[in-house]
Amino acid sequence: MLKFIEQSPLYRIANARSMAFFGASNRMTSMGTHLFSAALAGGFKGALYPVHPKEENVLNLRAYGRAEDLPEVPDLAVIVLPTQLVNETLEACGKKGIRQAVVVSGGFNEVGGGGGELESELKRIAKVYHMKILGPNCLGVANPHQNINTTFIPNESLPGFVGLASQSGSLVTQMFEYLSGFNLGFSTAFSVGNEAVLDIVDCMEYLGACPHTKVIALYIEGIRKGRAFMKAARSIAPHKPIVAFYAGGSKAGRAAGFSHTGALAGPDELYDGMFRQAGVIRAGSVVELFDACWLLGSMPVPRGNRVVIQTHSGGPGAAAADACGRVGLVLSKLSDKTLKNLRPFVPPTGSVGNPVDLTFSKDHNDFFSHIPEVLLAEENADILMVYLLNPSLVVERVLKGLGISEKEAVVQGQKIIESNAEALSKFLKTQKKPVIAYSFHRPDAHVMKAAIGKGLPVFQGAERAARAIAALVAYGAVRKKLTT
Amino acid sequence: MLKFIEQSPLYRIANARSMAFFGASNRMTSMGTHLFSAALAGGFKGALYPVHPKEENVLNLRAYGRAEDLPEVPDLAVIVLPTQLVNETLEACGKKGIRQAVVVSGGFNEVGGGGGELESELKRIAKVYHMKILGPNCLGVANPHQNINTTFIPNESLPGFVGLASQSGSLVTQMFEYLSGFNLGFSTAFSVGNEAVLDIVDCMEYLGACPHTKVIALYIEGIRKGRAFMKAARSIAPHKPIVAFYAGGSKAGRAAGFSHTGALAGPDELYDGMFRQAGVIRAGSVVELFDACWLLGSMPVPRGNRVVIQTHSGGPGAAAADACGRVGLVLSKLSDKTLKNLRPFVPPTGSVGNPVDLTFSKDHNDFFSHIPEVLLAEENADILMVYLLNPSLVVERVLKGLGISEKEAVVQGQKIIESNAEALSKFLKTQKKPVIAYSFHRPDAHVMKAAIGKGLPVFQGAERAARAIAALVAYGAVRKKLTT
Repeated sequence: MLKFIEQSPLYRIANARSMAFFGASNRMTSMGTHLFSAALAGGFKGALYPVHPKEENVLNLRAYGRAEDLPEVPDLAVIVLPTQLVNETLEACGKKGIRQAVVVSGGFNEVGGGGGELESELKRIAKVYHMKILGPNCLGVANPHQNINTTFIPNESLPGFVGLASQSGSLVTQMFEYLSGFNLGFSTAFSVGNEAVLDIVDCMEYLGACPHTKVIALYIEGIRKGRAFMKAARSIAPHKPIVAFYAGGSKAGRAAGFSHTGALAGPDELYDGMFRQAGVIRAGSVVELFDACWLLGSMPVPRGNRVVIQTHSGGPGAAAADACGRVGLVLSKLSDKTLKNLRPFVPPTGSVGNPVDLTFSKDHNDFFSHIPEVLLAEENADILMVYLLNPSLVVERVLKGLGISEKEAVVQGQKIIESNAEALSKFLKTQKKPVIAYSFHRPDAHVMKAAIGKGLPVFQGAERAARAIAALVAYGAVRKKLTT
Repeated sequence: MLKFIEQSPLYRIANARSMAFFGASNRMTSMGTHLFSAALAGGFKGALYPVHPKEENVLNLRAYGRAEDLPEVPDLAVIVLPTQLVNETLEACGKKGIRQAVVVSGGFNEVGGGGGELESELKRIAKVYHMKILGPNCLGVANPHQNINTTFIPNESLPGFVGLASQSGSLVTQMFEYLSGFNLGFSTAFSVGNEAVLDIVDCMEYLGACPHTKVIALYIEGIRKGRAFMKAARSIAPHKPIVAFYAGGSKAGRAAGFSHTGALAGPDELYDGMFRQAGVIRAGSVVELFDACWLLGSMPVPRGNRVVIQTHSGGPGAAAADACGRVGLVLSKLSDKTLKNLRPFVPPTGSVGNPVDLTFSKDHNDFFSHIPEVLLAEENADILMVYLLNPSLVVERVLKGLGISEKEAVVQGQKIIESNAEALSKFLKTQKKPVIAYSFHRPDAHVMKAAIGKGLPVFQGAERAARAIAALVAYGAVRKKLTT
């Protein structure tokens, strides 16, 4: 594990103070222009130098003809040129003294044939000029904490705590919007491409040392340096959780991955074993990967796997119990103390087993305040799982029934839903146990926006919630195993 | 299988022309009032009679003191009274000549003890008065095609094609909003509760004969009459797909279900075998249940399990290939003809394997029109799976780069995204193969709303899409097996 993040060869890439773009033009349909536009849109504070053989200005910034013409030695060169121009440009950058590069261009190892030779030459140039290179065939880096984004899609999400090292560029760019839906964002995300020079292990080490990163996500199509990967993971995992999605697990996924980055994937079991030994938590899909990150980055690590489920609907309660059972979570047996403390809040039709099924709460607000408080105090429970149901239409109807005007009912209804979400999310700060919600509300429902906005993880359906909780529990076991 | 829907004992419940509500009042916090409000909000066209011992009017409708005071014999009595009043009310309804009832009240078999005796008495009354009863401990019925909704949550979704029979009332009410997010809706949904008189088999038979229902969804905590279930399912499944989620599969789920409706659940394998023999497709979660319904109700049944994946992102392509591989789908080998026809659209960096990875399309619009057209003509492929990426910000940036004003770019950008969605969804009507999309866009993204609005199923992440496709393929096999 790196002691200081500055020791990482990726440091000046992810924290570049100035960047030159090779391949940006004024033609909006070119990939280079897209990347440069996204960098501009991201509000990068340092100097940006478009390099173009003919244009005087590119997107209203002064352009330079060649690397040697640049007025200073930028920290980073971003290269989006036709394949055959990449190596000579890299060499010119090296001569200029540039020591970091992101090579976006494809046409190297991943296409086979002459591409392999071009990649060998790229590596030779990197060696000669001591250049740290991400790629080729990658989208580089997004570090929202520094307004750095070398990819072609603007980052819509806020600076966050999810560190990502990905063998797919899309799974950087296309996660900006996705993560923003959960109020999440990247600390720093790397697209590693063909890993000619810097690889996914370097990224893991950077993210391990990165103070903004609370959890490391990996998208893997094939690991090249198994031993280095294991060593790095084992040194980081006791301090920071690592979750991986491996796309090469099935035969079809393996073949697809190979044609994508040329990565050599192995059978599922091999990776399963490697992840287990390395203390890496495995996710079954991209969705699961970030679901797990959500909890691992925002929740305390539970002491065990005992869940208490709070619901006012029997079906969603049974479905959650089933989902927990399938992923190795157990339902807590409630203590007499808890049963006694719950009594005042449970109507005769409610159940005081686990799931705690309240059917109709006597007081709607109790569901978000007193009841979770009692359940979080349960000594036999490590985790609270809450079914979230707070439909605007019903809340408004009750208010209208009390004689409140249509318009006012909408306003008051929102306030009630927000204060319920506030009450429930309060426990995220005051209690040391994870609180996770699941729901069938549409993502654009008030209650979803209110709860997620206040930091409460809410999953669509019990299964996603249960799997993410299982990842959280698994990390507790990893940490115990690797530190003892 | 029923020849005519009118033969079903549920017919006059799901198509009631007049309803009496027992338990509705002017107190907005009571369950009965909630149910009555939802019925009112649903725009029911027939007569509604609140029955209340004291009030002259309930929610501005004339109230009647007792069943015998009603001015006509309504088709349906909805009963939301304290448990001990239910049976005498039912008896009064029977005497009045009412032949259909929904008993919402709980406190019967599901609570044990004296509840069992009350339920026996309820059954006796049903027999004496030839009453068809849904419940007790249920939420009754929602038939949006007739503006009927006896549950307590207003139905936000449009009349649709999903028929539901559920052992959980919540999984009726809480799916209104959920389904509306996919532009789906119920044909008719039944909450069966304790199934004292009418049960889930009756509902299946009704839905099997219902002309609005294209697919039948079942939420099951335990099947009481295994043989009748199998017989009904086997007669319906060749004509109409049936999908079931069984919540009692794990030990925890089983225990939760028992305390909910008193249903006796059996081990997973038992249900697995029963579903297989009955031609019922099994879903692993509530989310999977409705994902499968989406495709089964809106897509043609594919000839086989051969998928072609279209993407311009390698990572999502590999993830989709992996997801397909894990659920028994195979990736088609593309014919020479297809490879030749694709060539004009594929840039040098694109891959002409399967996944068809186009990286950057030469013309953005081809991705939604010419390319899927070529792939749908592939004789080795039964299903087209498309990765959907069309970010507003990028489209707008290109337009702004072409000199179009900020404001106009937003308008034009939306139009482009909508016309792309239109082009892709056109194939739903003109081709006989299923087209399914997956994406990491937020559900509120323009492209998601546009595509889903035009009837294209779009799933979050490849795994959900692959599982739903697998259900569609499984139905093809069921139909073949049961009809030969």
